[in-house]
Amino acid sequence: MPNGALALIRTLVDAGVTTCFTNPGTSEIHFVAALESVPEMRAVLTLFEGVATGAADGYARMADSPGATLLHLGPGLGNGLANLHNARRARVPVVNIVGDHATYHTQHDAPLQSDIETIARNVSTWVRTASNTEQLAGDAVEALSAAVGPPGQVATLIVPADVSWQEGARAPSPPEPTAPPAASGVVIEAAAAALRSGRRTGILLGGRALRERGLVAAARIAAATGTKLLAEMFPARLERGAGLPPVERLMYWPELASMQLEGVEHLILGDAKPPVSFFAYPGKRSSLVPDGCDVLELSPPGSDVVRCLEELVEALGAANAKPVLQQRATVPQPDGPLTAAKVCQAVGASLPEGAIVSDEAITSGAALPPSTEGAPRHDWLTLTGGAIGQGLPVAVGAAVACPDRPVLALQADGSALYTIQSLWTMARERLNVTVVLFSNRAYGILDIEFARICADEPGGKAKAQLDLGNPDLDFVALGTGLGIASQRVDTAEQLNGALDHALSDPGPHLVEVVIPAEMPGPPIVGRAAHASSGR
Amino acid sequence: MPNGALALIRTLVDAGVTTCFTNPGTSEIHFVAALESVPEMRAVLTLFEGVATGAADGYARMADSPGATLLHLGPGLGNGLANLHNARRARVPVVNIVGDHATYHTQHDAPLQSDIETIARNVSTWVRTASNTEQLAGDAVEALSAAVGPPGQVATLIVPADVSWQEGARAPSPPEPTAPPAASGVVIEAAAAALRSGRRTGILLGGRALRERGLVAAARIAAATGTKLLAEMFPARLERGAGLPPVERLMYWPELASMQLEGVEHLILGDAKPPVSFFAYPGKRSSLVPDGCDVLELSPPGSDVVRCLEELVEALGAANAKPVLQQRATVPQPDGPLTAAKVCQAVGASLPEGAIVSDEAITSGAALPPSTEGAPRHDWLTLTGGAIGQGLPVAVGAAVACPDRPVLALQADGSALYTIQSLWTMARERLNVTVVLFSNRAYGILDIEFARICADEPGGKAKAQLDLGNPDLDFVALGTGLGIASQRVDTAEQLNGALDHALSDPGPHLVEVVIPAEMPGPPIVGRAAHASSGR
Repeated sequence: MPNGALALIRTLVDAGVTTCFTNPGTSEIHFVAALESVPEMRAVLTLFEGVATGAADGYARMADSPGATLLHLGPGLGNGLANLHNARRARVPVVNIVGDHATYHTQHDAPLQSDIETIARNVSTWVRTASNTEQLAGDAVEALSAAVGPPGQVATLIVPADVSWQEGARAPSPPEPTAPPAASGVVIEAAAAALRSGRRTGILLGGRALRERGLVAAARIAAATGTKLLAEMFPARLERGAGLPPVERLMYWPELASMQLEGVEHLILGDAKPPVSFFAYPGKRSSLVPDGCDVLELSPPGSDVVRCLEELVEALGAANAKPVLQQRATVPQPDGPLTAAKVCQAVGASLPEGAIVSDEAITSGAALPPSTEGAPRHDWLTLTGGAIGQGLPVAVGAAVACPDRPVLALQADGSALYTIQSLWTMARERLNVTVVLFSNRAYGILDIEFARICADEPGGKAKAQLDLGNPDLDFVALGTGLGIASQRVDTAEQLNGALDHALSDPGPHLVEVVIPAEMPGPPIVGRAAHASSGR
Repeated sequence: MPNGALALIRTLVDAGVTTCFTNPGTSEIHFVAALESVPEMRAVLTLFEGVATGAADGYARMADSPGATLLHLGPGLGNGLANLHNARRARVPVVNIVGDHATYHTQHDAPLQSDIETIARNVSTWVRTASNTEQLAGDAVEALSAAVGPPGQVATLIVPADVSWQEGARAPSPPEPTAPPAASGVVIEAAAAALRSGRRTGILLGGRALRERGLVAAARIAAATGTKLLAEMFPARLERGAGLPPVERLMYWPELASMQLEGVEHLILGDAKPPVSFFAYPGKRSSLVPDGCDVLELSPPGSDVVRCLEELVEALGAANAKPVLQQRATVPQPDGPLTAAKVCQAVGASLPEGAIVSDEAITSGAALPPSTEGAPRHDWLTLTGGAIGQGLPVAVGAAVACPDRPVLALQADGSALYTIQSLWTMARERLNVTVVLFSNRAYGILDIEFARICADEPGGKAKAQLDLGNPDLDFVALGTGLGIASQRVDTAEQLNGALDHALSDPGPHLVEVVIPAEMPGPPIVGRAAHASSGR
């Protein structure tokens, strides 16, 4: 009869969850001790809980298996909340194990006591406080089932210390198998009819539809019908590059997204939500669905969107339609003084086959899509819920999940500071991550939003709230302090060399590029331009 | 008719809240813009919300006025939650202004949408989502009243973007004055009877009782009756040093705290909670109240504990009793190789008059109380709720509140990493903070807890969860990266010189001391020893 902690780890491992991102404290000490007895479980220590939760997210996106965390009471969960928000928005399966005081201790209201469930509910569909050791393994099975879904969810299992340390754990019952809801023949027919109707149509793809099989099916539909394919604004994982069907992501600025959707009379959603402005703006509408446009949800929530797309291919008789595939296109290495666009170009020029890109470059990444579309096949992971500080942790998790693939973290400076502790875990675990740190010394997105909303230049006090200078952040020093090989580059030539070295030398590297705070996007709508995320 | 944001800032300023610790985003952009029109409001930018909330706490402790934050939606509040937990536990008044999507935008479930109120409830007694611009200033007045109490609370006002940007704000009604509950004559008499009874008594002081007036009253009672004075384990603010009545803090390790309370037959609580073990341990009891000891709460919640103590002085006829006062006692500067105890000694030797100490030294600070008790008068701020990562932000807030006083942040390495971004705000605001970074390269407290609980040395996998080495953190590089003058010292002589320089040179300084991970506390209970906080 093992103790609760040991049974819990065994249950996770037996269900295929063999990695856990941790920041434990005294109430989780039995979990830590039990790690010794379960060699299959890898525990990756982080120095801050936001790194653990973001890494679990990144791991789950790439491993297609739930990410797991070990956190310390309410404050530990609170510190991890922002990246759990991002995971929730993208329906990424994550299981949090949160230690709590012993059941009999809570009545005394000791200093670390708080209502953990209230915090958990912000991000978790499934929340439970384990009440006894005997049932703990069963609780873990239920948490995992809830997390896997479909759709994927964040599940939080709160484990009082005595439930961990007592003996008498019982083996869990196997989980109830759940079949995803079937595609609806009526909906498939309606979509086929719309696509055949001669009206201008579009298909907005999200979730699993953005992996190869879904993209190929959608591209066959486009080839047969001429419909426009779009991807959701911030996908959890987009497979792209040479040999895959290209798909344009919906843009952040509502004016630009509206242009992408202009004239669409029938919008088919493939595991995506109806398009909406990231933020509201005075006097502007929130919905990006064009007036009079019909919206059809192709796949019910939790259903298999790829199967729905493939059934739609059949219904359209498009099985032999030839999908447009992205051709390999090389981008020349940039030269001369650095700009954000040139950094994007250098990334495109050096992106290796099989790379995983964690993109939190925000305004500096405006030129990334065109610079990288013809690169060798790769995965693109974005900031799914808008809570910045996700890029570096996601890179950690992706690198743990895929040790043989190069990971690029394209990271804005302001956002980097929320979870900068990620660099230490990259160093400790010797992860193959190359961090490209876009240092424009501003919350660039806020500069633009201020100008858009307030129709004015900020005064000194307001400007100080948008500006990261005074003092300047030195990311080479920060990287060095956290144990990661770090360098700053001043020219495009140096950047090209640094990327080549970082991508070929094992272990993590950080390359800081100091660039002007400019907006190189298309100057279509006043001060607005394309950007890859918002705050 | 000003817009909501401007009316909100005006209301805060009119109520005396003239500092706000911020990390804004697009939904708070009107608040940022309105700062320009209210010169009385100082907005202090932080690079992470946990810095903002901890700084608000530190500010409120020293300014005796509510601390205020400006945060960005649910994830921003989540990032700030751990230090709000600490503020809640210590009944420190904090008002959070949390921006939200425009009221009409929420229906579209945009990426940053989440249920902010669920998060806020973990820490806030008072939570409200403002529903219209007209009432926003009134909402702010209510939030401030709730925060001030007494007792002090965390109040969270959620402000949708359109409530900020619309015009038509109305001046608020003045707040209803609230009188604190009066002391109960019956309780005062019962306490006096217990103190006169000949039974062994103790008074456990907390909150405001740990300021000079409360301490002097308690010391008169002790002089007249021989009762034992103790302070709560983790006070928000303890006034101590030469010229003030000394009071021993309840120790962290339950075995030691039990010894401090041993034999007490009647325990009087002066704004303190009944003593409880910080964590539960297998087979040990949680309550630290000795068997058979009667507990009497001297001051009802929210009442004026100082007045209660002074009434008790009167009831005992002790007005002329002479309180024992701490004599000035100098500690020699240490020499030779560094240990944690020698660092504590160096701090005691150099502590200047009027210093404010933010103490998150955890295990390394075991020798701080004896090393500093005879130092010139100072304030001691501790980790009130056990959520680590509070020491540096509290130092930020204290330094903003008291620009003419030297602030010492005594900081453990593991805890420092949760809110290391604090150093940048210290640099930007040129705060007079000296950070002494105790680098023992371990979660030292967890090493001890592991040994206590598991009665075993951790194996390799468990040890890796408790250890901060591999790679070592370099705090000089981290400090440099965040713009603060930083140095490492290798000997006591160097440390003495570095402290003298840092305390006399304006602006922030960081001094890293690399010390062995040892436990210099009294070896009374197995491996247990005194430590100043827990995880």
